Amino acid sequence: MRFTFPLMAIGLEVAMIVLFGLFVQYETDQNVSQQPNSTKSPTVDVDRYLDLYPLFQDVHVMVFAGFGFLMTFLRKYGFSSMGINLLIAALGLQWGTIAQGILQSHGEKFHIEIKNMINADFSTAAVLISFGAVLGKTSPIQMLTMTILEIAVFAVNEYLVVEVFGASDIGASMTIHAFGAYFGLAVAGILYRSSLKEGHRNEESVYHSDLFAMIGTLFLWVFWPSFNSAIADAGKNQYMAIVNTYFSLAASVVTAYACSSLLESRGKLHMVHIQNATLAGGVAMGTTADMANTPYYAMIIGSIAGVVSVFGFKFLTPFFTTKLRIHDTCGVHNLHGLPGVIGGLASIVFIALETADTSAMAMQAAALGSSIGTALVGGLVTGP
Amino acid sequence: MRFTFPLMAIGLEVAMIVLFGLFVQYETDQNVSQQPNSTKSPTVDVDRYLDLYPLFQDVHVMVFAGFGFLMTFLRKYGFSSMGINLLIAALGLQWGTIAQGILQSHGEKFHIEIKNMINADFSTAAVLISFGAVLGKTSPIQMLTMTILEIAVFAVNEYLVVEVFGASDIGASMTIHAFGAYFGLAVAGILYRSSLKEGHRNEESVYHSDLFAMIGTLFLWVFWPSFNSAIADAGKNQYMAIVNTYFSLAASVVTAYACSSLLESRGKLHMVHIQNATLAGGVAMGTTADMANTPYYAMIIGSIAGVVSVFGFKFLTPFFTTKLRIHDTCGVHNLHGLPGVIGGLASIVFIALETADTSAMAMQAAALGSSIGTALVGGLVTGP
Amino acid sequence: MRFTFPLMAIGLEVAMIVLFGLFVQYETDQNVSQQPNSTKSPTVDVDRYLDLYPLFQDVHVMVFAGFGFLMTFLRKYGFSSMGINLLIAALGLQWGTIAQGILQSHGEKFHIEIKNMINADFSTAAVLISFGAVLGKTSPIQMLTMTILEIAVFAVNEYLVVEVFGASDIGASMTIHAFGAYFGLAVAGILYRSSLKEGHRNEESVYHSDLFAMIGTLFLWVFWPSFNSAIADAGKNQYMAIVNTYFSLAASVVTAYACSSLLESRGKLHMVHIQNATLAGGVAMGTTADMANTPYYAMIIGSIAGVVSVFGFKFLTPFFTTKLRIHDTCGVHNLHGLPGVIGGLASIVFIALETADTSAMAMQAAALGSSIGTALVGGLVTGP
Repeated sequence: MRFTFPLMAIGLEVAMIVLFGLFVQYETDQNVSQQPNSTKSPTVDVDRYLDLYPLFQDVHVMVFAGFGFLMTFLRKYGFSSMGINLLIAALGLQWGTIAQGILQSHGEKFHIEIKNMINADFSTAAVLISFGAVLGKTSPIQMLTMTILEIAVFAVNEYLVVEVFGASDIGASMTIHAFGAYFGLAVAGILYRSSLKEGHRNEESVYHSDLFAMIGTLFLWVFWPSFNSAIADAGKNQYMAIVNTYFSLAASVVTAYACSSLLESRGKLHMVHIQNATLAGGVAMGTTADMANTPYYAMIIGSIAGVVSVFGFKFLTPFFTTKLRIHDTCGVHNLHGLPGVIGGLASIVFIALETADTSAMAMQAAALGSSIGTALVGGLVTGP
Repeated sequence: MRFTFPLMAIGLEVAMIVLFGLFVQYETDQNVSQQPNSTKSPTVDVDRYLDLYPLFQDVHVMVFAGFGFLMTFLRKYGFSSMGINLLIAALGLQWGTIAQGILQSHGEKFHIEIKNMINADFSTAAVLISFGAVLGKTSPIQMLTMTILEIAVFAVNEYLVVEVFGASDIGASMTIHAFGAYFGLAVAGILYRSSLKEGHRNEESVYHSDLFAMIGTLFLWVFWPSFNSAIADAGKNQYMAIVNTYFSLAASVVTAYACSSLLESRGKLHMVHIQNATLAGGVAMGTTADMANTPYYAMIIGSIAGVVSVFGFKFLTPFFTTKLRIHDTCGVHNLHGLPGVIGGLASIVFIALETADTSAMAMQAAALGSSIGTALVGGLVTGP
Repeated sequence: MRFTFPLMAIGLEVAMIVLFGLFVQYETDQNVSQQPNSTKSPTVDVDRYLDLYPLFQDVHVMVFAGFGFLMTFLRKYGFSSMGINLLIAALGLQWGTIAQGILQSHGEKFHIEIKNMINADFSTAAVLISFGAVLGKTSPIQMLTMTILEIAVFAVNEYLVVEVFGASDIGASMTIHAFGAYFGLAVAGILYRSSLKEGHRNEESVYHSDLFAMIGTLFLWVFWPSFNSAIADAGKNQYMAIVNTYFSLAASVVTAYACSSLLESRGKLHMVHIQNATLAGGVAMGTTADMANTPYYAMIIGSIAGVVSVFGFKFLTPFFTTKLRIHDTCGVHNLHGLPGVIGGLASIVFIALETADTSAMAMQAAALGSSIGTALVGGLVTGP
């Protein structure tokens, strides 16, 4: 037992190195100039390598600092949640690079670009969301296993959504947020022990742990427009994804505060709502971030997400713990699960209103179903 | 009373959505190509959308994380100041987009660009500065009101400064920093109660709250060059604004530490000075950031600002509290007010030395007067 | 004594302003168009000023927020280490600009670009690394002296490495990390008092101070790819430096966790390892960041660095304190010294394997020797 974790970690790292040796190559200048944009002058080609780098860095801050600090609110798990967060993300980005790359290249060698690094960070984000549901209930060894299994399922679901269904989910409301939340809930259901029902004295925040969590909240909030736009088509689509997310987040803050004050005794604001529900607008905007062609639409989505998220924290989380026997430590169902589903449904509504293309609507519905379905199956298999 | 805040917040959000529906549109590709730079190749046009996005993100971090954490130094108000900061900023950026856009388009529909988002964040920054003066003395409801009123006055003053006077204030020493500080001081004067004179036991920092405040200080410090250059003309002006601010800030750190040690007993450094006066160089550099054509000029400005800010904290703040009956919780007069005025005066001196264009000097003076005047009037009206 | 620090700080700032007045100029548009890339269209020229700005900002966050917070782990020195960090960095970037500029221009006036700001931040980073070795043992006055002397030696060593030896050290494993660590260790050796051997009750972290240190760790971790690529040649080299560092860091996290669990009682992870050894992959990747043409090579470097760093913390640091009479407060030898040497050696091995160019190998060895040698001599001279 004493050596299980070190040996497993070393073994996984060796496996990653071998897989990278077999499959991963750098872009060569030749590859770059064979891209569709090859009519650009050579000088501009030089810049092409790094076009996405600022957006990547924003996403990178979100995954490592944002998710890491968001989970420090528990007074006794602050440091260990940060530590495990870093481990999951560091292993996950290597394995995510391989899993996604091999699927997309159908088993051939593939070249790595900044975009692959963004997608690797994305795959990691799904695991970190699931980690939020099981925080305090798992060992580092279990988290290594979950990282490997969840990212494999994630890559398969993403392949289904993008390549098979041809659905659109640019900011990944469905493939990251809903997927990560339901995967984590399924695992949390397996790990349930009846003692969790009474609550635990460590399951509390203290004043400073709440401030640390706000580091996470704010860096996630600030960089979310980059998350939703990082892999959008350059130009107008990317620009719309940024602006829509900016306003959707702002709207969700206002409605989340309103609902928090409404539901709490004496009109106080609840810290968990401020830390979490203020981000619901970013999650819910994901799928339609590059579709919505007027900002007020984004603000409606964000407003709804803020309301739903606060009501979820207030009423659904206790219900899940006591009735469904699912203990969701960080309330990821309210921050990622429900708003992720809203994001998917919004894309169906939006297509219905704009083009009424029933085939496109069906594909979005299939993507949403696949994201939740693979997550639940994957989580139930991973749990034990 | 119990429902005032929720209803007011929901009502404001609905109003924002309606206003956005009436006035705000996305840029179309056609608009973009009608810009002056339309001789650029189509490929380059695609990039044009996001040229300012990295600078916007730096400003965005400053407004949400920088100002938020800077105000966590009080041991009992840390969390509520962060929470209100986020609420003000989220509502303010929506209202700022509308107020500025309608004024500039003279009531027509307008297109939204990344630059509008920067300006919306800027309008929010003015309110957050004012919030620093009244921290601990107001309710969330009062802050919603203040956000709406202050941003309206802010947009009018900015219109006067830029469109009517044709003055230059690229880094907004006058229109954001001096404006925000004097607006807040006017409100604080109205809210004065004699009990504030004796100080309050909650008006203290503790060890960890000072470290949280340093998160704010450092992210403001690091990104201030982006704040002062974000809306400067691309090319040489933007580059000069960045480099000037970089060196001005560095100089203000050194002189602020020197003065702090000089004024404190036994030569110790005072935490409030480290947290605040180190930023005075960024504030004071604002107006002349894109004018000053030698870095040593920037270092002189920064050195002066660091000295003035520390002396302000040491001598002016107690004087304001006891004699003027204005209780300035965070000392915004010393960080934003005085250095902002220095910034405005520096632009007059600079024009005098370089071109001696008396008309330009008069317009800068008018801009400074307008920023302080509208702020005081606005604050006095808003206070009750 | 009472006035020594203020007068010294003011005097140094005045000296900086005079030196800037004598030597530093802005780029003019004419200079820009005389660059080799002058075939670009005028529109693109405008952008040229800011090409490196996003990378600069990432480095800037690392130097000011990253290094600052990394040193907050001691429960009683958190605030003073942050304060001194800011002072060193603010003075150092001014002096670094001058020292490097004058050496490179051979005493002529020189123009300042974003790249100079990156290099100025780099010179500052070396001093901050040395500061980690002497934290808690020095006064602010001593740190001002050390900043001036160390950056002068740093600039000389960098000149030797780049201009004289023509060696390659793009991410500065040797010239910043090894140099800074050995300089600091030499000073720490001079400052040794036997009371340090028994340890000190302030030499402990508490729960929250460890979380503050993680802010430093995570922002360093996330932005390290920018550190190693900021001054690389645009295009493929820069891209490779980014990707190599990304994967090297990920690998060092996994192996550092494995070794930490292996060496600690009951398989627990040690917080100091999580905070520091996870960064060793970034340090060790520095020299070969733009050479290594396959990512798995980067992962091997990172894996080795993570292992070596943890073993260093566990066994070398106690040995240094008790036997060598060198008390290394933050363990910079394990985070910067050893991984920096690994980085230098890796470049020799890499050249041996790829081209077997013995002259190039000798120059890399000379660079490594020079970095350690000038650091030790400089540190021993500075110490008293």
